[in-house]
Amino acid sequence: MSAEHHQRRLLSIRPVIRPVDRGKEATGGPGLKLPDRMTAIAIAEPGGPEVLRPEQIAVPRPGAGQVLVRVAFAGVNRPDVLQRLGRYPPPEGASPIPGLELSGEIVALGEGVPTDMLGRKVCALVTGGGYAEYCLADWRHCLPVPPGLSLAEAAAMPETLFTVWHNVFERGWASEGETLLVHGGTSGIGTMAIKLGKLFGLTVIVTCGDDAKCAAARALGADHAINYRTLDFVEEVKALTGGKGADLALDMVAGDYTQRNLDCLGADGRLVTIAVLGGAKATINMAGLMVRRQTITGSTLRTRPDGFKALLAQEIAETVWPLVEAGRLRPAMDRTFPLADAAAAHERMEAGEHIGKIVLETGLV
Amino acid sequence: MSAEHHQRRLLSIRPVIRPVDRGKEATGGPGLKLPDRMTAIAIAEPGGPEVLRPEQIAVPRPGAGQVLVRVAFAGVNRPDVLQRLGRYPPPEGASPIPGLELSGEIVALGEGVPTDMLGRKVCALVTGGGYAEYCLADWRHCLPVPPGLSLAEAAAMPETLFTVWHNVFERGWASEGETLLVHGGTSGIGTMAIKLGKLFGLTVIVTCGDDAKCAAARALGADHAINYRTLDFVEEVKALTGGKGADLALDMVAGDYTQRNLDCLGADGRLVTIAVLGGAKATINMAGLMVRRQTITGSTLRTRPDGFKALLAQEIAETVWPLVEAGRLRPAMDRTFPLADAAAAHERMEAGEHIGKIVLETGLV
Repeated sequence: MSAEHHQRRLLSIRPVIRPVDRGKEATGGPGLKLPDRMTAIAIAEPGGPEVLRPEQIAVPRPGAGQVLVRVAFAGVNRPDVLQRLGRYPPPEGASPIPGLELSGEIVALGEGVPTDMLGRKVCALVTGGGYAEYCLADWRHCLPVPPGLSLAEAAAMPETLFTVWHNVFERGWASEGETLLVHGGTSGIGTMAIKLGKLFGLTVIVTCGDDAKCAAARALGADHAINYRTLDFVEEVKALTGGKGADLALDMVAGDYTQRNLDCLGADGRLVTIAVLGGAKATINMAGLMVRRQTITGSTLRTRPDGFKALLAQEIAETVWPLVEAGRLRPAMDRTFPLADAAAAHERMEAGEHIGKIVLETGLV
Repeated sequence: MSAEHHQRRLLSIRPVIRPVDRGKEATGGPGLKLPDRMTAIAIAEPGGPEVLRPEQIAVPRPGAGQVLVRVAFAGVNRPDVLQRLGRYPPPEGASPIPGLELSGEIVALGEGVPTDMLGRKVCALVTGGGYAEYCLADWRHCLPVPPGLSLAEAAAMPETLFTVWHNVFERGWASEGETLLVHGGTSGIGTMAIKLGKLFGLTVIVTCGDDAKCAAARALGADHAINYRTLDFVEEVKALTGGKGADLALDMVAGDYTQRNLDCLGADGRLVTIAVLGGAKATINMAGLMVRRQTITGSTLRTRPDGFKALLAQEIAETVWPLVEAGRLRPAMDRTFPLADAAAAHERMEAGEHIGKIVLETGLV
């Protein structure tokens, strides 16, 4: 249903595909000659941040439908940490190098890619390989970097934007006037959920692990922030919604949060789970779910087919990107690390000190 | 979303409401004078079938928007048994007399009901009171009994038809070409799910408790019937779908069936729970649900607002009732008992001997 909806939209707004040169490379400007080798951050073996090590590897060449991006910045995400720990293996065909999003300049085109993509500054969702000086992307998974959006900010958007948009607005059917509960209010996902939620007319309640983070979440736009270490978030959500409950919960904890999330939701409420950081096993009350007509669902983005992600990118280009172009949506930025210091970036994420997005900088663009 | 969809449909097909006489009663034919008292089956106290006892009570008078139906037949449903046991109290405002569906003749109209309803033969979904010689119904919850449909059959349809239509096709988004798994293949719900599923292009797999019931389910149209006492239905469903899994499961068991149902479903599969006969508590694997983008939801019909049921009735009048009029949809009928023998009807249902619907006959129409 969602796919059909996307398909219809896509048909009406798909950019005109022009005749292409096969395997075209940018050759116009200084410094555009492509090297054969590049620095990338490999996972030497499953383990702590120290297993992230710069290595010299071959610069990949774009296949059909792909572009090669000279990376300016790469976003750091929680799944990168899980991948480093050996708990989230890259899907078949994906680069073993971590990194699910990036920004930079398109420096080479594979077959079938519109030629006017060459030289463009873009950000992109990728299935891996972002922690590198060059990275391949499906050209349909790229979004243009508009004036006013820095390349650091651009790299910080695709993963959380695609994830939140799909799970909150498509899978979760969020609509104007509804109340959204999000855990991890200062995480990359949490901060994007706050910002998107407010732009699309939702009341946003978040949970955070301390009062400073609660204050930061409120400063980013959250209507309410609950310190889950000092308060029972179920009771708080009930009180904040006048007993009615939230309409939607975006959860990355699962485990015993699953029933607690359902307890936060009112009639016809939807729980969308996008990670199971608190454990996969959940015990729930099916009678309560039935009587209140609640829905539990979830998804994971990385393994979806390229075609699905292309449709999602088109939907976002149409619905959200105009807000980015207008300067109304910017990611919450935490800190920038040099690419070679990816280990330090992971340490910061695992310490839970960050508020918003951590990015890695190559210094190349 | 579903409600809006209904609303749009409703606006285009709503019957013209004509000027009404207030509190009009049928007076034209012989025997149409309304008595003050009637026989109804009361629940003397929570307990076994023997607590169902005929009593003389006042014939109710229709309020605004209601019709009084002289009952021909009343359908017997599993919730009636739960109500008798004291485990399913009638919702506020509902009759304490059991009975959620009936057929008969409209013999009196409340305010605001189109006058041409008077004298019509209808079947209706009611919130209670069906086990009686007269029963009130919201006029919008009535469907006309077309030529060729017996009053016994008509009484056997509303509860399962409304339930299956809403949960399989609306809540569960069943669409042509998909595979539906239904438990209790020879129950009222199961038999209706088989018939509706086949009429709307689904492959239907059911489970039943013995080989004779499996054969009966197949004879009613089920593509596959699994004897759950001798076979592992999860393995069977996987084999029957070539490893892909079913798209949708309609479940009334819950408990440990919940995860087993999820295991039967493929990617993007939906589990819709409409009763928890096996227990409310369920332990599920949220990682599996997330990776396969499965959905768990459920609903219960009786407590929904009258307006919702009216929209649902309109949807059914438009989508399903033409098939009834054309003789293509008939309920699977088990046995008819006299109203006074409601206890025997419950005994039969609880023994699990029935195949299809049990109805009670008043002998009045």
